[in-house]
Amino acid sequence: MPAADKPAGSLDELGEFALIEQITADLETSAAVRLGPGDDAAVIRPDGDVVVSTDTLVAGVHFRTDWSLAHEVGQRAVAQSVADLEAMGARPVALVAAFTAPGDLPAAWAKQCAQGMRLEAARSRSVLVGGDVTSGRDITITVTVLGDLQGRPPVIRGGARPGDVVAVCGRLGWSAAGLAVLRRGFRSPRAVVEAYKVPEVPYGQGVIAATAGATAMIDISDGLLADLGHVARASGVRVDLERERFTVPEPIQAVAAATGADPWSFLLGGGEDHGLVATFPDGAHLPADWHRIGGIAEGEPEVLIDGGLWSGESGWSHFGR
Amino acid sequence: MPAADKPAGSLDELGEFALIEQITADLETSAAVRLGPGDDAAVIRPDGDVVVSTDTLVAGVHFRTDWSLAHEVGQRAVAQSVADLEAMGARPVALVAAFTAPGDLPAAWAKQCAQGMRLEAARSRSVLVGGDVTSGRDITITVTVLGDLQGRPPVIRGGARPGDVVAVCGRLGWSAAGLAVLRRGFRSPRAVVEAYKVPEVPYGQGVIAATAGATAMIDISDGLLADLGHVARASGVRVDLERERFTVPEPIQAVAAATGADPWSFLLGGGEDHGLVATFPDGAHLPADWHRIGGIAEGEPEVLIDGGLWSGESGWSHFGR
Repeated sequence: MPAADKPAGSLDELGEFALIEQITADLETSAAVRLGPGDDAAVIRPDGDVVVSTDTLVAGVHFRTDWSLAHEVGQRAVAQSVADLEAMGARPVALVAAFTAPGDLPAAWAKQCAQGMRLEAARSRSVLVGGDVTSGRDITITVTVLGDLQGRPPVIRGGARPGDVVAVCGRLGWSAAGLAVLRRGFRSPRAVVEAYKVPEVPYGQGVIAATAGATAMIDISDGLLADLGHVARASGVRVDLERERFTVPEPIQAVAAATGADPWSFLLGGGEDHGLVATFPDGAHLPADWHRIGGIAEGEPEVLIDGGLWSGESGWSHFGR
Repeated sequence: MPAADKPAGSLDELGEFALIEQITADLETSAAVRLGPGDDAAVIRPDGDVVVSTDTLVAGVHFRTDWSLAHEVGQRAVAQSVADLEAMGARPVALVAAFTAPGDLPAAWAKQCAQGMRLEAARSRSVLVGGDVTSGRDITITVTVLGDLQGRPPVIRGGARPGDVVAVCGRLGWSAAGLAVLRRGFRSPRAVVEAYKVPEVPYGQGVIAATAGATAMIDISDGLLADLGHVARASGVRVDLERERFTVPEPIQAVAAATGADPWSFLLGGGEDHGLVATFPDGAHLPADWHRIGGIAEGEPEVLIDGGLWSGESGWSHFGR
């Protein structure tokens, strides 16, 4: 019921239950989904052990509504959560989304965000099965994703062994370069700006890597060096990267030239592209789309590049930056 | 590294990774948990189909830090999520928590909140297996809980049939009465204030009701009438409640007398105690702790009490109140 204090087209005017109804209308489903939204909880039928991960995006912290469209924010929320499942070698199955927003937010923003979630879920071959909608000052989106292992063990961070090969799949530094561009008030090169707004997660490659015998895997969310640092510590090994095995993509060269930044800071320190980095036994046939960037050796748990420590920026931590 | 702009003892001073390390130290586990926190995702081994639900608490909307202690907020966040699983007849197994807070929040608050989550998880016989920590203006906690059905079908909202008995398990109106007290600046009767701060979910009763043949079930989060309204609509039946089958608990009588409120508005309209209401076939033996409050009949999908519509306040909706 419209009222003076409920702006036209706002969430307040639409109401919680109508919003949920509109978001969940004609929702995609799959064979693994036994019960979708509309009850107290959803029910899925997994194949093997279940993998679960949760991730949050907060307006003003992780995204800006003047930089990203609503559907892009929804896509990114799903992509970053699903990337964690890919990194375990799991098959994404279902996701639930908790959406918090101020009552004066245009309902269209919430609906387009949900559309983006559905689109990205479809890309990852998972489906939205439930959620929660609450009011709060800042738009805050938490996506929890469930997947299954289809009888395989998970690929953990601690499985890398000396002699293994280190390989990456997906983009490095594109998102960070896009953010650097936006922070300077520019909108191009468009390829990196788009990469920042919606990361291009290499869906399906987690299962492919697991099947190919990956010994350890992680998704690159904090930056290649920071995330390989997690693998090094969990596995008790040293990671040796070789700079000559990397190529600096053209749009990152362009951003570096325009901003005066070191392009390697994007490649090695930039997170949020949510590509995958994994280790494989020496001699294993690397799957297509995976590129060797180094190897694993005995030694202190650290990440070296051409035998030395990288001195540039590496990784991101919430709080205390 | 302490700095002038990082208040002593704050999240900013402690840092994201140290906080996670402290929260997850010596974490409880269970046979169903194959991999807990510390990797990209957690792994559980469910027994049968998997049930999942997500719920959010926002500071200033769902709780006030001057009313509730940190560990109480953590307990409540877990309790309200697990209640949704109970309502499906599922066994709670594992939960993940997304925690957003401003960097100047005392780290002790976050740690005590996590302690509360662990305590309440233990009460519900589930364990914390992972999460996400991010910065944001308002404390926002999203708990997603996973359970399993151990070979049973889920108990959905739409299964009530004419002739069924309606029964309730757990408290009605205590939380709403507690909130009414706090809103007037009082701290007693303490029983209802405590009930508002940490709902007493009847853990294990969902599985018991399912095993006893419950045909429909829902957790009482919006208020008894509102939630039974969901059952009535999903099942296409009328719900007939009998007022004489209810008793008004002494502390609710006290709150009603002190505030001038109708005690029935607490019992019938008050949500957030997260008790369970279910329907059972006529003649079924109701489990202990379940109390008959009415029956199911053919008719318009509505909830009547003593044959009439209740005219008091019923239920809660985010946005557009």
